[in-house]
Amino acid sequence: LASKLPTVGTTIFTVMSKLATETGAINLSQGFPGFDCSPELVSLVEKYLRGGFNQYAPMTGVPALREAIAQKTADQYGVNYHPETEITITSGATEAIFATVTAVVRPGDEVLVFEPAYDSYVPAIDLNGGVPVYVTLTPPDYSIDWQVVRDKITDKTRLIMVNTPHNPTGHVWTTDDLAQLANLVRDRNIWIVSDEVYEHILFDGRVHNSLMMHPELRERTFVIGSFGKTFHITGWKIGYCLAPKELSVEFRKIHQYLTFSTVTPIQYALADYLKEPDHYRQLPAFYQRKRDLFLAGLQGSRFTWKPAEGSFFQTVSYTDITDEPDYDLAIRLTKEIGVASIPVSVFYNQKNDYKILRFCFAKDDAILAEAAERLRNL
Amino acid sequence: LASKLPTVGTTIFTVMSKLATETGAINLSQGFPGFDCSPELVSLVEKYLRGGFNQYAPMTGVPALREAIAQKTADQYGVNYHPETEITITSGATEAIFATVTAVVRPGDEVLVFEPAYDSYVPAIDLNGGVPVYVTLTPPDYSIDWQVVRDKITDKTRLIMVNTPHNPTGHVWTTDDLAQLANLVRDRNIWIVSDEVYEHILFDGRVHNSLMMHPELRERTFVIGSFGKTFHITGWKIGYCLAPKELSVEFRKIHQYLTFSTVTPIQYALADYLKEPDHYRQLPAFYQRKRDLFLAGLQGSRFTWKPAEGSFFQTVSYTDITDEPDYDLAIRLTKEIGVASIPVSVFYNQKNDYKILRFCFAKDDAILAEAAERLRNL
Ligand SMILES: CSCCC(=O)C(=O)O
Ligand SMILES: CSCCC(=O)C(=O)O
Repeated sequence: LASKLPTVGTTIFTVMSKLATETGAINLSQGFPGFDCSPELVSLVEKYLRGGFNQYAPMTGVPALREAIAQKTADQYGVNYHPETEITITSGATEAIFATVTAVVRPGDEVLVFEPAYDSYVPAIDLNGGVPVYVTLTPPDYSIDWQVVRDKITDKTRLIMVNTPHNPTGHVWTTDDLAQLANLVRDRNIWIVSDEVYEHILFDGRVHNSLMMHPELRERTFVIGSFGKTFHITGWKIGYCLAPKELSVEFRKIHQYLTFSTVTPIQYALADYLKEPDHYRQLPAFYQRKRDLFLAGLQGSRFTWKPAEGSFFQTVSYTDITDEPDYDLAIRLTKEIGVASIPVSVFYNQKNDYKILRFCFAKDDAILAEAAERLRNL
Repeated sequence: LASKLPTVGTTIFTVMSKLATETGAINLSQGFPGFDCSPELVSLVEKYLRGGFNQYAPMTGVPALREAIAQKTADQYGVNYHPETEITITSGATEAIFATVTAVVRPGDEVLVFEPAYDSYVPAIDLNGGVPVYVTLTPPDYSIDWQVVRDKITDKTRLIMVNTPHNPTGHVWTTDDLAQLANLVRDRNIWIVSDEVYEHILFDGRVHNSLMMHPELRERTFVIGSFGKTFHITGWKIGYCLAPKELSVEFRKIHQYLTFSTVTPIQYALADYLKEPDHYRQLPAFYQRKRDLFLAGLQGSRFTWKPAEGSFFQTVSYTDITDEPDYDLAIRLTKEIGVASIPVSVFYNQKNDYKILRFCFAKDDAILAEAAERLRNL
């Protein structure tokens, strides 16, 4: 069987998490919380499991959950999406991203990708016959040069993939970025997918500039959200897509044949749990403490960094320590000092190695302190 | 946004279930149990939810579940799949089917589809640029004329889609069908996807002839299983794919970017629950009683039928009653006598109308009796 994705090997997340397990290293590689979700949320799932909510949910999602998301989105961003026609529940943000790319991209279409990019974007484009066109962002700022973006747009550009707050760099978009993007796509047949799964994790008083908040962007954007990162339930695989009706119609046609629907008792539980905004309002402070604790622990080391603006990832530069390729260093640190990370080169198409490692700080304080201590002594 | 699936409207399952709800009709349309799963299975999920198994499962599935499936498959069919490299857990059989088609089919490839066909097959082929080639099966037997199949195979045929026990007709494959298929594909570059989600639901002493049991078929087949139909948990969206290592490698590359992984506590719970074979061995008798009860209730009506060989669907012919199109009759019966069904024409590419309705008998006995009574008096 000839491979349709010949260059795809084992994902870096699997490689590093496995190596961490085998070596007993602290695992700051794959992005998942090292602590559990709230017992209240577990109880809600149990309530619906026991209540017999165990058959297919509606294809578009349980109405109560779609309504709760509409309410939360209106409260938070002042933007309205109609729960009946503009909100669709998916089996994680990964499914939502694949469904969007599949709904939009045809063979030969160009798709603008800011790199470093999350590892599922390009395979989704490839499988749909699209052509990724890269805009390369570099440390330490990872900011966007909009003139470069403008130069990459052609008549074939059909989709632009946005991710803010950004994995792996923690970079967040400004309102100026939104305005620049709106200028670029105006009067063009270009759609946008905005992966905003870290929407609740921004630091130092920053606010999340969701693409939906710009009216011209709202009308051409599929905004992707996730509960995994917000409620410490990455293993429950539940996300959603917000998009104008005409786009949601096409999104749903794909979703229907990818997974059809998403786990019913979890949907009902989240519908209840979302009604209390404190459940996510506390998140920036919660994660800022962890970021600061980790960075305080790195003080005095030979790593350099800019504090992450958002997400639960901190990238650091190690050019003052060694010349090794980042992949080799990530492996070596796992084995030798027992701290697993992700080499950021894997998120670049050409594996550009700027000597940057990514650490996930969604871990217990004691673990973060111990990891930082091991890294400080390098 | 130009549609990539222009002919897809609202799925018949959504249309009929919604109409049934609105009119208060008995819903024998969409295929899902009208009763709950076992409390023991719910307790197991609760155990893992409370035990903190709430972050990402491995991309290929929880090892304990893959091992339990390997064990069950060996016990049941005498066929071994390696849990590490040949078994992958998916977010339902729908995802597994989409992933298989995506792994195999390239633009211009021909895919053989036996119709009537489950509604997700052809969109998956279309989205991958494949060309569906139909082999049309007709009532009352729905048996396969292998000469016809042979004539439809060309150098471009890349995939054959099999479904036994069959939805919507309940038809099951014989060992002769397996041998015929093996003869046809021998020495050709053709892969097979075998949707066997009703593997535990066969009647009148029939045994399930899984394609994996034929050694030549095993090596080129993706066998798709599901827990939803077997354990009355269609809303938990969990299935799997069994395929030789080289095929599983390609399957997993797609699965990784479709959903990445599947709900963790549910995987652990099913790993435990599978260890007791009685949990599925009782299923044929359980559903045969329901099929027989429903058919006994139809005795004396002007419908005609052959008892379903497998699945939880019974098709009936109404040519002695009316000439109406099956779609119209399904709507009318829902509104006028309060029994919702699925018109089988929707499963044919050209909407061939053989005047057949499909009824799901995975419902409580009293409901089945009441539905049959209403139908008997037509
Ligand atoms: C789906 S595993 C990857 C988790 C994640 O988002 C990351 O580590 O970047
Ligand atoms: C995914 S909804 C359809 C359920 C089903 O298998 C059927 O009714 O045929």
